[in-house]
Amino acid sequence: MYIGAIEAGGTKIVCGIGNEQGEIIDRVSFPTLQPSETLPRIVEYFRGKELKSIGVGTFGPINIDKSSPEYGYVTTTPKPGWSNYPFLGELKKAFDLPFGWDTDVNAAALGEAKWGAAKGLDSCLYYTVGTGIGVGVYAEQRLIHGFMHPEGGHVLVRRHAEDHYEGFCPYHNDCLEGLAAGPALEKRWGVKGAELGADHPAWAMEAYYIGQALSQAILLLAPKKIILGGGVMHQEQLFPLIRQEVQRTLNGYVNVPQLAGGIDSYIVPPGLGDNAGLSGAVALGINALQEFAGQRNS
Amino acid sequence: MYIGAIEAGGTKIVCGIGNEQGEIIDRVSFPTLQPSETLPRIVEYFRGKELKSIGVGTFGPINIDKSSPEYGYVTTTPKPGWSNYPFLGELKKAFDLPFGWDTDVNAAALGEAKWGAAKGLDSCLYYTVGTGIGVGVYAEQRLIHGFMHPEGGHVLVRRHAEDHYEGFCPYHNDCLEGLAAGPALEKRWGVKGAELGADHPAWAMEAYYIGQALSQAILLLAPKKIILGGGVMHQEQLFPLIRQEVQRTLNGYVNVPQLAGGIDSYIVPPGLGDNAGLSGAVALGINALQEFAGQRNS
Repeated sequence: MYIGAIEAGGTKIVCGIGNEQGEIIDRVSFPTLQPSETLPRIVEYFRGKELKSIGVGTFGPINIDKSSPEYGYVTTTPKPGWSNYPFLGELKKAFDLPFGWDTDVNAAALGEAKWGAAKGLDSCLYYTVGTGIGVGVYAEQRLIHGFMHPEGGHVLVRRHAEDHYEGFCPYHNDCLEGLAAGPALEKRWGVKGAELGADHPAWAMEAYYIGQALSQAILLLAPKKIILGGGVMHQEQLFPLIRQEVQRTLNGYVNVPQLAGGIDSYIVPPGLGDNAGLSGAVALGINALQEFAGQRNS
Repeated sequence: MYIGAIEAGGTKIVCGIGNEQGEIIDRVSFPTLQPSETLPRIVEYFRGKELKSIGVGTFGPINIDKSSPEYGYVTTTPKPGWSNYPFLGELKKAFDLPFGWDTDVNAAALGEAKWGAAKGLDSCLYYTVGTGIGVGVYAEQRLIHGFMHPEGGHVLVRRHAEDHYEGFCPYHNDCLEGLAAGPALEKRWGVKGAELGADHPAWAMEAYYIGQALSQAILLLAPKKIILGGGVMHQEQLFPLIRQEVQRTLNGYVNVPQLAGGIDSYIVPPGLGDNAGLSGAVALGINALQEFAGQRNS
């Protein structure tokens, strides 16, 4: 059984074919240009592929309210051509298939719960720390939405006493994203994060912010695994620093093995590596197919 | 159909009988003493009442992991006699009925979603601000748990510039509960909150903290309604101040009617008033009965 998968990021779009085991059988990628250039390439790739369904995990914000006439739109992105764009609707014009539709990070959380670092668990959080910071929330065996999808990259955090950088978020200045996403590292230290040594003080400050956000989320949701992906998290020295910050801020209040001796296997990189997003889109496609079958049978 | 309901708080225990419409038909309350004194009173009240099930919404922390041998325990409370106490197990010895079991605040969130301020919505948060601060999380039409129940009263918040009170939380000093629960008001200002005038600067500071916590939760979960109960929230002047703080901290990033013109009906007092907890326990009991019936039929 072949499931189509679209991982739409701000800089590139990855399309692929997966199966029920979450294996990626084929993949292509191309830059995210205007929809008028990009959509035909997506459609061309999937044409004739004998798919059962397609899952879309995309950059946002997006409309995920099935009762809204704008369900399936990319909404307020600054990305040229994509603001208020009916992404899902255009795909549906090309393919008469069940479609899954969610954010890239929700897709990654689902993929990790199905086949990755949170396999077999009924809850996990997936953070991506890169150009921006996004969060996917999986709890009680399902992806969580409310009036919109999670936007937990913008939570306020306490400022580090030695941090004099004002933050770059156009809405909040010094929210988590404004202080800890890739551009903040570059603006604060004058060079890209990847060029800072592993023992540079930048990383302790970075962990101070990310650890606080994780502690907030742990107190609210108690996820059974926290997965940290994205470009900044390729700096592996961040993981032990972040784990320490989580323990420091919670200070023993939440007395479970995951937050004590077991923390090295609690806050972890993606089990699916760089395939987390694409595999997650496959998982969205599988869910959409099951939902479709359920509706037909009821 | 009669459903038993137990709302167990740190100072008093309320027992009642409700029906499928969430109506409370009868209720009693008595102080929360040692379990050896309190449990017999609970059992005596429900004896012979022809119940279909019983729902328990209790102070915590509690064990909610059905696979644990300590499921149904009150765990690390300082309350004499209740630490590591098998509350649910003792009730089950007395009554061979399906039991619902959750925190008092999760119960209240469920009750509000079923019959109260969030009626008909598939998500809401219920905060209680009193001696402590607790949070119940309802999302995707169910109560949310992970490795434990929500403990969102202890999230870290940014300190108010004019606040020199150190906070009273034994774990975190100046987390939300440490700075904004009832005892913080009394220790900071020297008199109980209820004795401060409605225009006292205490309330703007209080709203500063609660509003931050709500913004964190909105960004992570986008709940369709936020309900604020508990003794401190009887200070009605807090509601507009908290709504302003939420708008100030989010600063237009989340562009939905609920957070703009509609905020007065988004952040609200309990629709069930002081019955939120007891009605929520009825709702837990109804859920337990349905789950029991589902297991028998499968």
